[in-house]
Amino acid sequence: MIKNYKAIVEYDGASFYGWQRLTNKRTVQQEIEKILKKILYKKIKINGSGRTDALAHSTGQVINFKVDLKIPLIKLRDILNENLPVDIYIRKIECVDFDFHARYHAKYKKYRYKIYTHKDKKVMLNKYYYHFPYVLDVEKMRRASERITGIHDFRSFIAKSAHIENSIREIKSIEIIEEDGFIDFIIIGNGFLYKMVRTIVGNLLTVGRGKIDLDAFDKIIDAGDIRKAKDTAPANGLYLEEVFY
Amino acid sequence: MIKNYKAIVEYDGASFYGWQRLTNKRTVQQEIEKILKKILYKKIKINGSGRTDALAHSTGQVINFKVDLKIPLIKLRDILNENLPVDIYIRKIECVDFDFHARYHAKYKKYRYKIYTHKDKKVMLNKYYYHFPYVLDVEKMRRASERITGIHDFRSFIAKSAHIENSIREIKSIEIIEEDGFIDFIIIGNGFLYKMVRTIVGNLLTVGRGKIDLDAFDKIIDAGDIRKAKDTAPANGLYLEEVFY
Repeated sequence: MIKNYKAIVEYDGASFYGWQRLTNKRTVQQEIEKILKKILYKKIKINGSGRTDALAHSTGQVINFKVDLKIPLIKLRDILNENLPVDIYIRKIECVDFDFHARYHAKYKKYRYKIYTHKDKKVMLNKYYYHFPYVLDVEKMRRASERITGIHDFRSFIAKSAHIENSIREIKSIEIIEEDGFIDFIIIGNGFLYKMVRTIVGNLLTVGRGKIDLDAFDKIIDAGDIRKAKDTAPANGLYLEEVFY
Repeated sequence: MIKNYKAIVEYDGASFYGWQRLTNKRTVQQEIEKILKKILYKKIKINGSGRTDALAHSTGQVINFKVDLKIPLIKLRDILNENLPVDIYIRKIECVDFDFHARYHAKYKKYRYKIYTHKDKKVMLNKYYYHFPYVLDVEKMRRASERITGIHDFRSFIAKSAHIENSIREIKSIEIIEEDGFIDFIIIGNGFLYKMVRTIVGNLLTVGRGKIDLDAFDKIIDAGDIRKAKDTAPANGLYLEEVFY
């Protein structure tokens, strides 16, 4: 019988051109679909909760797919993990309601953005953190975070190339954690426009460096003007951490 | 005037086919030589302290190269780092004796090998640690380490493909550090045969798991038989950490 399966997928995005299937590029979606086909002998389309950018990571991407599974569910995860490349890992698979859709039913998403502010580069971290070697006013970044939290039109934070009808989204919370020069930004929202997380972080960093003050930051939010917020942090520091349904 | 420069090079080896120049493969040596040529407008051959395997890392590779430098030395490091890819970083450059040779004058080398023993894979660690999800007797591995420390014929620990006249080497020390399921093996020696560090670690793990006892381990050392020590740990957990002159 065809059933609907939900899985949590972790990936080290350093060697991927992002989530979404692409011709002649290595992407997470097609690696998983390739292995599912190899194991289950049929072409299976998976739905991700959303795309992630080239070089961005995930510790909690959610997918669903429908299949008439001929092997025990408990074995599927292990067989998948044995066959998947080292940079993809299936943390959990379960059978869910037939209607469940990883993308359409996502209520909130949690992203984490990691930077390190040490003067010298640490080469082993470069694919996993954004190196931002500046003195940052963390308290000021927290105050700016409060201003952007809530329901706003995030048109200022859209990538130029994005075509979005409705750019109103809700940021539920932004938490900033600092330790020994490492700073994590943890952002929860009900939906994110293309490059929105990276552009929020980029602008918080601009505030933290003292390049713009809180009023100027407010004006960027209020402008509702595509690409008003110009500072987009690179994808390598970004992690999709959890999807809430 | 042509002078001799010594540099300390860090690299994340995950996307490299090792140190040594190779046709049509991305290697650390040729990436550095390519950037030196771009910056200094001349072909410069660099000497590394030794090769490192494909996928192995370095936090302390040493190189030397001779050039008539037309820019201040203090600028060279920054310009190199700006031009090098994200996975290579020059920590330090200095002018040294004209005779200094990174490979021939190396007295000792320090390697670190990293594993994690947690049952579940952690995908973000896979390129930087060897995942070895077994209960290990660390004290027993320490006792085996003592037996292999000192001057031995390491012929048992040579890769099959290696052609070595003299396989006598000195291991100065092996330190094993354990914390929360992460184990580091820190090995200092006066020279290492091809795959020797990885084969020592692989066999220490076999001891730690209880697959062979200390006497059997002794016999492997004494055998002096190529590939008697069959368990070679993979390259992704290996770091060249320091070279002593």
